[in-house]
Amino acid sequence: MFEFTISTRSGSARNGELALPHGVVQTPCFMPVGTQGTVRALSPHDLRAVGAEIVLANTYHLHVRPGEDVVRELGGLHRFMGWDRPLLTDSGGFQVFSLEGFRQVDENGVEFQSHVDGARRRLTPERATEIQWTLGADIAMAFDHVVPGGVDETTARDAMERTLRWLERCARRHGELADSRIGGRADDMDRLTARPPDRQRLWPIAQGGTHLSLRREALHRIIGIGAWTGIAIGGLSVGESKPVMYDVLETLEPALPRSLPRYLMGVGFPEDLVAAVERGVDLFDCVAPTRMGRNGTAFTPDGVVNIRNAKHRTDPAPLDPTCDCESCTTYSRGYLRHLFAAEELLGLRLLSLHNVRYVIRLAGEMRRAIAAGIFTGWAEAWRHRYLQPEPA
Amino acid sequence: MFEFTISTRSGSARNGELALPHGVVQTPCFMPVGTQGTVRALSPHDLRAVGAEIVLANTYHLHVRPGEDVVRELGGLHRFMGWDRPLLTDSGGFQVFSLEGFRQVDENGVEFQSHVDGARRRLTPERATEIQWTLGADIAMAFDHVVPGGVDETTARDAMERTLRWLERCARRHGELADSRIGGRADDMDRLTARPPDRQRLWPIAQGGTHLSLRREALHRIIGIGAWTGIAIGGLSVGESKPVMYDVLETLEPALPRSLPRYLMGVGFPEDLVAAVERGVDLFDCVAPTRMGRNGTAFTPDGVVNIRNAKHRTDPAPLDPTCDCESCTTYSRGYLRHLFAAEELLGLRLLSLHNVRYVIRLAGEMRRAIAAGIFTGWAEAWRHRYLQPEPA
Repeated sequence: MFEFTISTRSGSARNGELALPHGVVQTPCFMPVGTQGTVRALSPHDLRAVGAEIVLANTYHLHVRPGEDVVRELGGLHRFMGWDRPLLTDSGGFQVFSLEGFRQVDENGVEFQSHVDGARRRLTPERATEIQWTLGADIAMAFDHVVPGGVDETTARDAMERTLRWLERCARRHGELADSRIGGRADDMDRLTARPPDRQRLWPIAQGGTHLSLRREALHRIIGIGAWTGIAIGGLSVGESKPVMYDVLETLEPALPRSLPRYLMGVGFPEDLVAAVERGVDLFDCVAPTRMGRNGTAFTPDGVVNIRNAKHRTDPAPLDPTCDCESCTTYSRGYLRHLFAAEELLGLRLLSLHNVRYVIRLAGEMRRAIAAGIFTGWAEAWRHRYLQPEPA
Repeated sequence: MFEFTISTRSGSARNGELALPHGVVQTPCFMPVGTQGTVRALSPHDLRAVGAEIVLANTYHLHVRPGEDVVRELGGLHRFMGWDRPLLTDSGGFQVFSLEGFRQVDENGVEFQSHVDGARRRLTPERATEIQWTLGADIAMAFDHVVPGGVDETTARDAMERTLRWLERCARRHGELADSRIGGRADDMDRLTARPPDRQRLWPIAQGGTHLSLRREALHRIIGIGAWTGIAIGGLSVGESKPVMYDVLETLEPALPRSLPRYLMGVGFPEDLVAAVERGVDLFDCVAPTRMGRNGTAFTPDGVVNIRNAKHRTDPAPLDPTCDCESCTTYSRGYLRHLFAAEELLGLRLLSLHNVRYVIRLAGEMRRAIAAGIFTGWAEAWRHRYLQPEPA
């Protein structure tokens, strides 16, 4: 499954293919984030046009609104959002812990306040697994206890141990659902969803904060629990510095099973994608491309461009002359700047579209550089160009 | 040019073709409104997909931001906004008169306050003509003095007389520009725009408020002024009742030259389109389809649907099962409702897309009904279905 691997100074860069019920994903791969069952400002048609192979949706958000039963009645998440390629749902763990307002963790799960109507709700490992089963994504994530970057070792161990106990509960419930031992409901779902839900994979999440020994231990014990089809690294990019994140990745890399895809959750910016691929990571998700696009910031091979800047006012050049997206092949920087100055919705869409295309092309470039055996040099050259200070 | 004409109780319904520098427009025809050089929430690709043949842009808005010189530097309005089919620009008359805040009319033109930066600016017939020439639309509109619906005859006559004097000034300036008698500027424009700007048409606007004799007189005098390629009816749908608007159209219809397209400005809702085509109108523009779409209101053959309504929560049906747009062929009402409940940008786009497709299909249906000689019966049946009260 992972055919090309080349050693880098920091680990190994890998190519692979991930066969999922709704299609094959080629890695390294960036997943656009469709928090509420839609990637903000983009349609599924846009996502196909920019080459997205898999999209992430948020269990917490869809549970709170419209509710997983509504999604099931409307044919499951793929049909609901009009996306026929692979989908991954996170477990809600990260969202619950990053919510403003009330939340309370105990051994059973988390009680929290809905951001929509303020109502008290509870998520447990079993509920998070059931919700994701009902949504019907190709990959479901285990329910985890996320702690902020830089917490002390006792707190980090406590959350890691709880995440491991919750993983066993998620796996048990997922197994029951997959064995269709829950009576009529599974049949309903079989009837309503396009693909049999029992082909959904459950992936574990390794926690442990910034404590390398905890991270190693978490990974070791996760591998002991089950025969996984992928492993996620969670709790990074949550406030720690970049060198610390890279340390964790370099620590985990040799201990990760070669045959399993490695998913670094919530990362990231283009420079993080390159650094993480150097350290053996295969899959990513991040809201940055779309969020920054809506703020008027575009990724280009020469670093980020703020399209609101007055210097673009009469610039006939495309945002990124190397890019093949609709925004870059159709519009001038001057027009894109006008759309942002005039607060037109099309601007939000065109920069989101370009940024997602940018990171997907970046992943493809990395794939080719790895296959050609030139990744280390490619990464150096990429960084030299991308991170240079913008000319005055 | 206008081949099919059938008599109706209120006038005549007509089909025709309008050959313009950037393409042929088939009438009856609805023009989506791209106020600031973009049809809100839609891309040119979307507009082509829903069959838009011509788009309207606002001279006032583009003059204030980004400025016509910026548009010219970026290749003219077609290239600026990525729209290679016909474009019509209004003259700014209606916008200036509908602005909040300061404005002062004298014989020379209008002084007003920019809605963007509050600066005092002046539009005259000559400036409005020059700006539209610089923008490079296929059809430019004469600068007119619009008065509110229902003003007394003295005020309406005053504005009508001024509009006629301004029309002569617009026509004179447009002729000078078309003859390229303004030195280097026209050459610059020839170089920058894809099509020679001297093929731009200038259309007059008939005013006269709700006073039928004034309307008749305005039309008669306009026809005497020049050899026009189209005539607009302005100053309707500005506060007067629908029967009054229909009276004006029925009064003008027999006096309008058979060979010229008739453009009813700022109209309208589907029921207004049908009523106006019955009274001999060929072209329309209105922000209603996109504005209502952004508010969650959709046109359907059975009347308007408010997609925010809770009854659509788990409805797997499309918005309009008769419609071939992306929204109706891809998504359920339940998903569209979710997008509005979750305040997702995709919802604004999908309902705008559907509503524009709806009015374009409506125009196409009218064209076919006229060609088949069954328009009167068709319109009765259409109204019976569209205007029926929604079932409880």
